Amino acid sequence: MKSADQWRITLVGAGNVAWHMGKALSDKGYVISRILNRTIASAKQLAEELHVASFGPPEDLSADTDACLICVSDDAIATVIKQLKPGNCLLIHTAGSVSLDVFRDNAANYGVLYPLQTFTWGRSLDYSEIPFLTEANSEVNLGLINQLASSVSHRVMEADSIQRLYLHLAAIFASNFSNHMYTLAEKLADQYKMPFDLLKPLIAETAAKAMDVSPQMAQTGPAVRGNVKVIEKHLELLKSHPGMQELYRMISKSIRGL
Amino acid sequence: MKSADQWRITLVGAGNVAWHMGKALSDKGYVISRILNRTIASAKQLAEELHVASFGPPEDLSADTDACLICVSDDAIATVIKQLKPGNCLLIHTAGSVSLDVFRDNAANYGVLYPLQTFTWGRSLDYSEIPFLTEANSEVNLGLINQLASSVSHRVMEADSIQRLYLHLAAIFASNFSNHMYTLAEKLADQYKMPFDLLKPLIAETAAKAMDVSPQMAQTGPAVRGNVKVIEKHLELLKSHPGMQELYRMISKSIRGL
Repeated sequence: MKSADQWRITLVGAGNVAWHMGKALSDKGYVISRILNRTIASAKQLAEELHVASFGPPEDLSADTDACLICVSDDAIATVIKQLKPGNCLLIHTAGSVSLDVFRDNAANYGVLYPLQTFTWGRSLDYSEIPFLTEANSEVNLGLINQLASSVSHRVMEADSIQRLYLHLAAIFASNFSNHMYTLAEKLADQYKMPFDLLKPLIAETAAKAMDVSPQMAQTGPAVRGNVKVIEKHLELLKSHPGMQELYRMISKSIRGL
Repeated sequence: MKSADQWRITLVGAGNVAWHMGKALSDKGYVISRILNRTIASAKQLAEELHVASFGPPEDLSADTDACLICVSDDAIATVIKQLKPGNCLLIHTAGSVSLDVFRDNAANYGVLYPLQTFTWGRSLDYSEIPFLTEANSEVNLGLINQLASSVSHRVMEADSIQRLYLHLAAIFASNFSNHMYTLAEKLADQYKMPFDLLKPLIAETAAKAMDVSPQMAQTGPAVRGNVKVIEKHLELLKSHPGMQELYRMISKSIRGL
């Protein structure tokens, strides 16, 4: 087994995931040898940020790369794989919603390393707690990907493409959609001249409680209590916000239905 | 101004809010002298928990009470006020969605102390961080309620009934509805034999990020990126869950609309 500093890793992409994966791996001693990206200016920016000397377009994958970590948007992965002409290089994508099959016919060694987290450029994260879901086209390649993942995080788990797909969908609800609920709350607070800050202890406690018990057990509020008078009052308050009113109605119905 | 140990406070209600308010106030030296509740067994249970000697039905409000804190469900407040026959006792309710007017014609001294938090019996909370929204029918009563609130929390703010109503509605989105998103995520994870634990770092980071920046700025995912192919794939995956599918469609539309 190669030690971390013997690996030469190319990152493809120059966004939030590339920034964090580059940082997580180089923190553990892996050598990020090159950044490839369609927009060269972005490749250059990330290369500077991660102290990587070499960058270029996706067509420029060099032969001495041990692994090429593809951190582009889900829609762009198939195109990027064709541009890379990987030869024997181990290609790894990082997307929740893209099947392992995307590599077939265009690569010999391939797999997936999906970090189940929301990434923001420059924001610090405890990488050791991030679940990494891995999959590969052979035991050898799976072993290599698990080695990469395990040196960053203690939560590495194999998952097939279907499990990863549904877990990514679950993550949309747990993260994107819960965040949108915060956004709608912020809109309401703004409109009535109340600082969003007032809602922060509630947001923190709601997340903490759902993690300590289970979200279904932790559910509170008029919908789960079947408090129809409060629900009707709220729907009336939202009559000038038809989109929010409809969401309120449907989410309350969904809470009642469980 | 009376010191905390000179106050005699009666709690009405025996649920989560009564447990926490009783604890928060007695921690600060206030004397909880009595627990009143329609179901006597529950009054007795809370009285034991808070080391309060006296309990009874709502009709048993004693004349030496300085303040009576009503911690019953929103729908029950009007009924309870009539049962209490408060005389000159300061009545305070703790509900977000109930106007100050609920007291009119049934009390001489009254107000509101609304703690903006989700309460679970027995769960420990940092009371000093909880926003308390206060309102009263006179300056004197507002001063008394602010004294109570300020001795528990450093985040006390006056708000009228309309502001409180909308802030309560905002809290439904920020807490009850975000929690329901976690619940739906848990359902999906369960169905595909993936532990809900995998989603916890994501839930924690999503809440942390929304509080550090703003939820609107923090929004990620296929909906805000307009990634139609991923959205369509997810809707297809949810075809056997029509309720979740419709929520996915509507929340994605709402995210795009901002």
